[in-house]
Amino acid sequence: MLKDRTRTLAYMRAIMENPHLFAGKTVLDVGCGTGVLSMFACKAGAKKVYAVECSKIVDQAREIVKRNKYDDVIEIIEGKMEEVELPGPVDIIISEWMGYFLFYESMLDSVLYARDKWLAPGGLIFPDKATLYVCAIEDAVYKKDKIDFWENVYGFDMSCIKNLALTEPLVDEVDAEQVMSDTVPVLQVDVATVTKEQLCFAAPYTLTAARSDFVHAIVSFFDVSFTHCHKPVTLSTGPYTHATHWKQTVLYLDRALAMEAGETVSGTLACRPNSKNPRDLDVAASYSFTGRNGSFSNLLRYRLR
Amino acid sequence: MLKDRTRTLAYMRAIMENPHLFAGKTVLDVGCGTGVLSMFACKAGAKKVYAVECSKIVDQAREIVKRNKYDDVIEIIEGKMEEVELPGPVDIIISEWMGYFLFYESMLDSVLYARDKWLAPGGLIFPDKATLYVCAIEDAVYKKDKIDFWENVYGFDMSCIKNLALTEPLVDEVDAEQVMSDTVPVLQVDVATVTKEQLCFAAPYTLTAARSDFVHAIVSFFDVSFTHCHKPVTLSTGPYTHATHWKQTVLYLDRALAMEAGETVSGTLACRPNSKNPRDLDVAASYSFTGRNGSFSNLLRYRLR
Repeated sequence: MLKDRTRTLAYMRAIMENPHLFAGKTVLDVGCGTGVLSMFACKAGAKKVYAVECSKIVDQAREIVKRNKYDDVIEIIEGKMEEVELPGPVDIIISEWMGYFLFYESMLDSVLYARDKWLAPGGLIFPDKATLYVCAIEDAVYKKDKIDFWENVYGFDMSCIKNLALTEPLVDEVDAEQVMSDTVPVLQVDVATVTKEQLCFAAPYTLTAARSDFVHAIVSFFDVSFTHCHKPVTLSTGPYTHATHWKQTVLYLDRALAMEAGETVSGTLACRPNSKNPRDLDVAASYSFTGRNGSFSNLLRYRLR
Repeated sequence: MLKDRTRTLAYMRAIMENPHLFAGKTVLDVGCGTGVLSMFACKAGAKKVYAVECSKIVDQAREIVKRNKYDDVIEIIEGKMEEVELPGPVDIIISEWMGYFLFYESMLDSVLYARDKWLAPGGLIFPDKATLYVCAIEDAVYKKDKIDFWENVYGFDMSCIKNLALTEPLVDEVDAEQVMSDTVPVLQVDVATVTKEQLCFAAPYTLTAARSDFVHAIVSFFDVSFTHCHKPVTLSTGPYTHATHWKQTVLYLDRALAMEAGETVSGTLACRPNSKNPRDLDVAASYSFTGRNGSFSNLLRYRLR
């Protein structure tokens, strides 16, 4: 993850360019991993950093913090955020909690728990805003490779696997040239106030074709922003910026829509944890399109697992 | 896996070009997946195919076999090879059992079990031979990216992770130009006779530098062969042939060896399941080198997990 420079440099800027926010403050790092964000906070002048991590990487974090001589400021705490005790409230929470499609295997629940239990009134969260976007893409080549492939596999008909593949959002890099519509936000998350319940959402979207082309898929991606910074920092995972390890999430449609420039397709994007396996995400996307080349609508169900 | 054409086409050729071996025969497919090998066997004239699979893909396999009208010949059996019952012995066992480094998460144990319990005397196994090879490579660029990276991570010293990374064999594609020695077999497996115990091995190797260059890593890869075919078929996963999903397995050394053309490096490659977690493989590689540029030796331990 550290090798994702776009990601790490955004956090580095957000923290280290703002020593006026960190100097003398108490900081909580939720899911500290190797401890890199905690060390950024030290460099920005934090007085104390509690770095909480429940995976075995915590052993490396301890050694790294010691070797870099931050063990007088950073206290590594092994355990789940929901179960550990801190000596008192903190001024700032920092966390890199985002998953694929923003929410898949994300640690946001733990951040919200930490916020409600440990953040002092007026305290700050880094990042404090997240936005989920959608756009429409043309993807004839990949769809042929990844979906239609199953119609004729070495001479055999395996289209039952095609149907299964269609229900799996594909985490992949989308080329900017494939995007054939505008990009619109479908969900804005204020990390300072959002509740866990609000993360199950159903949000409408309307996309307008920027050119005449086919739509093979709806693509989703996210931004997170650090708006408390003197010069706000945004980490974007969209197709127009530097690639990140989050890539984009591609929801293939059951049919190609032949759209003319200026025509619109509307629908709803919905998401919630799977009831049997809460680590999985159930995603539903509806679309409704009426244009010169026909009128089509459907409700498609996907599962991120 | 089906998208690995090199793999699937090798099996396709081995089976479908040899109807004289399959016509009227009873076949067992160990770990049938989507059922593609079983259907190849049908096309080659098999009278009956038992296709055993313990994962949930078995539901798709059933539907695929039915849709392609082989359900009168292929009997899909859900379960572990070690637990299922067949009506009687089989003439041929087919299986795609190979894992990374040949043995990692491989199904060879199940194939050997099936061989001992169900293969008729004189029966055939596809593939029937496997060979593990090693060669030495120059890999300055990747080593810098993947290993030395940890020495300075955004200004922090994380070299404890470097030490950890050095113990993890890297499954990656090696360019043929990186290979700077000859390629030698270290283990030959006769699937018809090998025992499970013989798969824990320690085998010597000697590699000769083909040019003056640095050695950063020992690379391992494998071939499997179908020697019963009229025209023997070999599926190779080495750096000189078409890439496969198995790629190659790279064992980084603790130091770069500066070898002159014609000099040799010797050692032993050993492998066995980890005693606590038998899905993991413990791999040990020793090297001993004396050349114009010094004399070095060590025993390195890796774990494939």
